[in-house]
Amino acid sequence: MDMDACGVADGWVRNVSLSLPSLQDNTADADRLKNQLKRQLHTEKVEIDLSVLQELPFRLRDWGYAARCVVVKKRDADLWHLTGISNPLESQRMVGVAVDLGTSRVVIRLVEMSKGAILFEGSFDNPQLRVGPDVLTRIHACDQPGGLEKLNRMIIDELNRRIRNACKVCGFHTSDVYFMALAGNTTMTHLFMGLSPRWLIREPYIPVINSPDIQKADAYGLQINPAARVFILPNIGSYFGGDLIAGILHSGLSRQPDPAILVDVGTNAEVVLGNDSWLVACAGAAGPALEGGVARIGMMAGPGVIDRLRIDPETQEFQIHTIDEMLPIGICGSGMIDLAANLFLTGMIDLRGRFVPEVCGKKLATQSRIPYLEIVSADESGTGQPLMLSQADMDSLIRSKAAMYTILETLTESVGMVPADLKTFHVAGTFGAFIDPVSAVTIGMLPDLPPKTFQSLGNSSLEGATKVLTSCESMTAIEEIKEKITYLELNVNQMFMNRFSAAKFLPHTDRSRFPSVTIAQH
Amino acid sequence: MDMDACGVADGWVRNVSLSLPSLQDNTADADRLKNQLKRQLHTEKVEIDLSVLQELPFRLRDWGYAARCVVVKKRDADLWHLTGISNPLESQRMVGVAVDLGTSRVVIRLVEMSKGAILFEGSFDNPQLRVGPDVLTRIHACDQPGGLEKLNRMIIDELNRRIRNACKVCGFHTSDVYFMALAGNTTMTHLFMGLSPRWLIREPYIPVINSPDIQKADAYGLQINPAARVFILPNIGSYFGGDLIAGILHSGLSRQPDPAILVDVGTNAEVVLGNDSWLVACAGAAGPALEGGVARIGMMAGPGVIDRLRIDPETQEFQIHTIDEMLPIGICGSGMIDLAANLFLTGMIDLRGRFVPEVCGKKLATQSRIPYLEIVSADESGTGQPLMLSQADMDSLIRSKAAMYTILETLTESVGMVPADLKTFHVAGTFGAFIDPVSAVTIGMLPDLPPKTFQSLGNSSLEGATKVLTSCESMTAIEEIKEKITYLELNVNQMFMNRFSAAKFLPHTDRSRFPSVTIAQH
Repeated sequence: MDMDACGVADGWVRNVSLSLPSLQDNTADADRLKNQLKRQLHTEKVEIDLSVLQELPFRLRDWGYAARCVVVKKRDADLWHLTGISNPLESQRMVGVAVDLGTSRVVIRLVEMSKGAILFEGSFDNPQLRVGPDVLTRIHACDQPGGLEKLNRMIIDELNRRIRNACKVCGFHTSDVYFMALAGNTTMTHLFMGLSPRWLIREPYIPVINSPDIQKADAYGLQINPAARVFILPNIGSYFGGDLIAGILHSGLSRQPDPAILVDVGTNAEVVLGNDSWLVACAGAAGPALEGGVARIGMMAGPGVIDRLRIDPETQEFQIHTIDEMLPIGICGSGMIDLAANLFLTGMIDLRGRFVPEVCGKKLATQSRIPYLEIVSADESGTGQPLMLSQADMDSLIRSKAAMYTILETLTESVGMVPADLKTFHVAGTFGAFIDPVSAVTIGMLPDLPPKTFQSLGNSSLEGATKVLTSCESMTAIEEIKEKITYLELNVNQMFMNRFSAAKFLPHTDRSRFPSVTIAQH
Repeated sequence: MDMDACGVADGWVRNVSLSLPSLQDNTADADRLKNQLKRQLHTEKVEIDLSVLQELPFRLRDWGYAARCVVVKKRDADLWHLTGISNPLESQRMVGVAVDLGTSRVVIRLVEMSKGAILFEGSFDNPQLRVGPDVLTRIHACDQPGGLEKLNRMIIDELNRRIRNACKVCGFHTSDVYFMALAGNTTMTHLFMGLSPRWLIREPYIPVINSPDIQKADAYGLQINPAARVFILPNIGSYFGGDLIAGILHSGLSRQPDPAILVDVGTNAEVVLGNDSWLVACAGAAGPALEGGVARIGMMAGPGVIDRLRIDPETQEFQIHTIDEMLPIGICGSGMIDLAANLFLTGMIDLRGRFVPEVCGKKLATQSRIPYLEIVSADESGTGQPLMLSQADMDSLIRSKAAMYTILETLTESVGMVPADLKTFHVAGTFGAFIDPVSAVTIGMLPDLPPKTFQSLGNSSLEGATKVLTSCESMTAIEEIKEKITYLELNVNQMFMNRFSAAKFLPHTDRSRFPSVTIAQH
């Protein structure tokens, strides 16, 4: 590893200082610079973008044959590109942008590449929501004439607008952005690249590409430095995207000897298990309940949304916490899990998740023959209406948690392990950040491990992309992950269905698996 | 080497046939294609252009998972790019264009890449002639604001126009042109790339780049297929350009065991000597006389220009041949050499090239105290004026031939050889095509070797570029040439000047070197 004047030794920004040309050494300017970069990067082959080449002879003479260089390595070949140069004596910023390209929400983060400092972070709704809320609707929209182009333009235009604003806020130009690293699910990255996602959802489920080559920003229509390179984290298949690879990178799962597990929960539950010698992964539908997308009062995390909840076992009083501590308007995934756990512990729901009238008392109502539980009364609600949870909402949550547990069980068993073998249980995403592991264990969604086993990874998709911006080595790590990973097809066979049925009880039909869960006696 | 359905086994167009995707093999389309190309090309790494990727899933399904592919290899790395695909069952042409980018004249040739067939060839004046006739004037013009951009646009625009017309004539689209190979001197290639040639002529004579990376056509503003790649033959230094490398490639000099020499004569004389284990090269000013650029009646080859000439030793009658057999209007380099040889053989000029009044008789006149020899009388001339050669014109030719011989002598001696060791003496360019070796030997410009030793290479710059269009291996050959070649600096020291002085006699002060030259007795 080279140390140079930059803060990040393993980064994409390198300072070089060249010997001066003479009659005895009349090497061409480009070759002189390439030779030095080859030495510093321990590589055989460096190419220089034409735009850099055109200014090179002037700049080298202005700067006394020294330069600060942005270099980018090919994905899995020993070939580097010199994509930008600046005066080594001035503090011109060389910026990278990390993108977490979610189906619902997009997060961008600007990073000073030579120092690794975060300059800006912001998020916005994926503009493709206007076409459809989920992956499926958008894939079908691509079958319309011009559909793919429209969805592609939507995200590219919005990224351009957001990056432009971010640069403005930070006081530099979009042309100072030399690198983008982007993580998203397979459909989102296909739409970003203008590739048809049509065959992702049709048997035999074929992506156009799993490991996109590094391309220039202008090839994608991105309005940053036209020579900037775009690295898209690779996907493993139609249902296992680059966001998960980013998560594995960020978690360090693939670089530690002790087996650990990584769970990312959304509409799909994606799970990876492994260590520094092997990785197995699978993905399965967990149902939208955990995203807060189905219950009538369910919603994405935001101001006024209940994210934590406790029911006093004595008084049955609901103690709620909302985001920004505003009056409650709905409930998100972590709130739902707390709610289900507490309803179960207080006996307000039974083993099957059914409301128990004699315990719920006057909180339970019936509308059109469907039982509803009042979570927040009209007086205390931010909407002026009571927040009511239906039996159907609760059933949906139970199915989701059962699917989640079954996937975890299937994956650990596939490698001859049991949950107790796991020292670390990474939980990714906003879900991971807010969930109370004790509640998740109580309802039998996560296995009964000591609470400290569960580690929140934060936005691991964004963190993984950020790592790529400042570490050349991260690209090697990503290739390793790709090579190592085995994808387990979750064929929904009888075995899976049996496990799923057993997991639909609270916490599980096999109570011995959840010794820590103690239910109040009524 | 792979054989496939294409005519050229070693070419850039390859047919592939893929296994069909299934639930058991749900490899992504791009990876499926890459894996097959890797096998066929014996490589580790293939990248696919975004534009190809975007149409790939549709085309593969339309064509039953088969395709005809244009692939291009990186200059000196094991990395291939897939730049175009077409239906393997249709005969869509995949065209390459070879460019001989001369200072005065540009030649383009269109080639069907899969078969190697020549579809079109045409030449035109380099439009930069409007800015200046020679390299030096154009380099100085770049110091003006916008000067470089102007010269760059001139050649790019004219190439676009000429290629567009050629495609029209041949009945295909410019988007069918997938590859360009270009050979020119160092200044011409710098101007083509928009690189400043400023430092080529200033001590210590530094090019911006010697071995340009392969770039996309649209980076240069070329209006062919935007994904087409442009390969520029590398130069060795400011005074030894890619046109010479093309010549070496075409001559086969670097691949045969017997030492041979290659001479390209223009304003500069460029000479390469070597075999399959070593190459030495040098270049030196030969003076413009050999290009027909200086004598008042001298001109470039064209209709009415004297290209061959003989003087009857008995009658002293001038027997002239003109191009297209029109009335004579001037004389070109090969005609000048014939003229000087015949004047010398008939005793009309002496050992120093001075007109001999008693032999020239009434053909000799004096204007403003300068002697002139009438070559063509006013009656027989196409201009209505007599064609007159001055003593100064003859002196200039003598200096040029002396420089040429001295360069050859210096180069052969540098490796401990004498001219008699050479089995083959390649003479490049239009000069090589028209020159009579016997005349060149007679005046002592070329060494006294058997006439069959001298081989005309034709337009070796164009032929070398053409070879690149149809042979992947040619790129390896070019890298070999670059690695092998030693450039000999022709420092004009006392030794060189002594040799030059000795060579200013006809054929040489050392007559024993030219036993075949017999002079008429008067």
